[in-house]
Amino acid sequence: MPSPEEHAQRGERALIARLADLLETPTLAGVPFGDDMAGIDPSGLLATTDMLMDGVDFAVLEHDLGDIGYKSLAVNLSDCAAMGAVPQTALVAVALPDAFDMNAAERLMAGIHRCGREFGCTVVGGDTNSWPQPLVVSITVFARPLGPRPICRAGARVGDRVYLSGAVGGSILGRHLRPRPRLDLLEKLLAPPSPSAMIDISDGVAVDLGHVLSASDVGAELDQAALERAIHPDALTLSQRDGRPALEHALHDGEDFELLFTHAGLAAATTAELGLFEVGRIVAGTGIEMVRPDGGRCVVEQIGWEHFR
Amino acid sequence: MPSPEEHAQRGERALIARLADLLETPTLAGVPFGDDMAGIDPSGLLATTDMLMDGVDFAVLEHDLGDIGYKSLAVNLSDCAAMGAVPQTALVAVALPDAFDMNAAERLMAGIHRCGREFGCTVVGGDTNSWPQPLVVSITVFARPLGPRPICRAGARVGDRVYLSGAVGGSILGRHLRPRPRLDLLEKLLAPPSPSAMIDISDGVAVDLGHVLSASDVGAELDQAALERAIHPDALTLSQRDGRPALEHALHDGEDFELLFTHAGLAAATTAELGLFEVGRIVAGTGIEMVRPDGGRCVVEQIGWEHFR
Repeated sequence: MPSPEEHAQRGERALIARLADLLETPTLAGVPFGDDMAGIDPSGLLATTDMLMDGVDFAVLEHDLGDIGYKSLAVNLSDCAAMGAVPQTALVAVALPDAFDMNAAERLMAGIHRCGREFGCTVVGGDTNSWPQPLVVSITVFARPLGPRPICRAGARVGDRVYLSGAVGGSILGRHLRPRPRLDLLEKLLAPPSPSAMIDISDGVAVDLGHVLSASDVGAELDQAALERAIHPDALTLSQRDGRPALEHALHDGEDFELLFTHAGLAAATTAELGLFEVGRIVAGTGIEMVRPDGGRCVVEQIGWEHFR
Repeated sequence: MPSPEEHAQRGERALIARLADLLETPTLAGVPFGDDMAGIDPSGLLATTDMLMDGVDFAVLEHDLGDIGYKSLAVNLSDCAAMGAVPQTALVAVALPDAFDMNAAERLMAGIHRCGREFGCTVVGGDTNSWPQPLVVSITVFARPLGPRPICRAGARVGDRVYLSGAVGGSILGRHLRPRPRLDLLEKLLAPPSPSAMIDISDGVAVDLGHVLSASDVGAELDQAALERAIHPDALTLSQRDGRPALEHALHDGEDFELLFTHAGLAAATTAELGLFEVGRIVAGTGIEMVRPDGGRCVVEQIGWEHFR
């Protein structure tokens, strides 16, 4: 078991940083290591992989197996959206609990298939295993950038605006199980000038904006009033239940799967048409500051969901 | 829990057949569903995914974490060899037990990296998770056919010879942990005329030859005397311990990761140079028959390792 000191140095980000050193990772297809997808081939094809586990990402005893399958593919498709890439095909690896019968396995696969059909992504193969432990689903999706190149986390420039593709917070009330990858926005979002950096919100606005900022070597200011307009009704409901401010849910809840992107500035008509929220701007420096309506400022901690902590 | 009747209809092969129906799977890059790799893109790029689990494919308490990492990538590279394809890049998804410290995670990744360097396959990304359950490693590898097209399981023709790339059986004594993907053979094996069908031996000679036969809609005869020359010394050792004939170990033990292929006929000099064993021939019909030295025949049951049974 890790000691408390070691625990402090843990966390998925710390691990990924150490692995990046270890692996001497090259940059393929213009995508740095640790982005939402990786370049896998000089032809520009991208791939992403997500492993979902019972008890962490879903609960087999509570959730419909079709929904679990749907989510397992949808989170990968959200990574495609975050890179400005159109999904094509997928490989599905599963470790099925021994107690699963053939129908259970089929319900799971039918959910994956339903999601694939909805977003034009075909399952072309995989690996089927069983074991006396909880369900694990690991899906890999292949996609091609819609534009001339993928939109990475690095690329945000001082002066860019920060946008959200939809309202955030409180996904735990149910939306986290039916993620809606925002592939529908790509065609219009990628019309030049395209976003300078993009990510999907899986770990929360604060953490995921933080990924963009450190990859781009910049900081950001968030307008509290603007962010309050982007609070999802679920975050308000959750706030009434747990007494935590809804704004905190909007900043720190994960699994919204909306897009967060930076852009030189979109026309108000586009923002309105696509249902976007402009919530802040990129500044020189590091980290995230919140600007209150009275002009006061506070630092936003980059806390959210993180594995291996 | 499945009933006995259902259990009889189970097994990974039955499940894959039902999934293939469910998924309405297309054929991409000329590779049918369920082969060692899948076509993922019209450009001809292939991918394979393998999920390995603690207690099934390795034992964290017994085996070195570096070996476990090495094996996790090597089994995928063996799939590349089986398609006549050269590996390029890989994505690595892991579910690490909560009890793993950073060093344990690094030892695992170092083993993956060591294997990748040895065979020219670069880890370009992945997904790092932790959970309170046993270790799961799911790796996806991308490869390009070395020849004009991949070598599939379908393609064996009546009159072709059946070859093994090396001795088989008894891998459980230790070789199963250090698989040697036979990528070293590809250049010479794929010189025209190339193999008509190929697979790597993960589930045992009988089961994996069976995959080739059913995909190719043919049968096979194995020469007992020839197969006896291809028995690995480990199978003899194991036979002395457990009293099962060494030939049975050669037929039914899994995880040898040698190649099994069919070919119109290789020159004796090539067979000798590459250390191949010619062990039988493709015939009209279905299934596998063993021809004994006295000319007698018996049916070889296609029994070996199978998940979800």
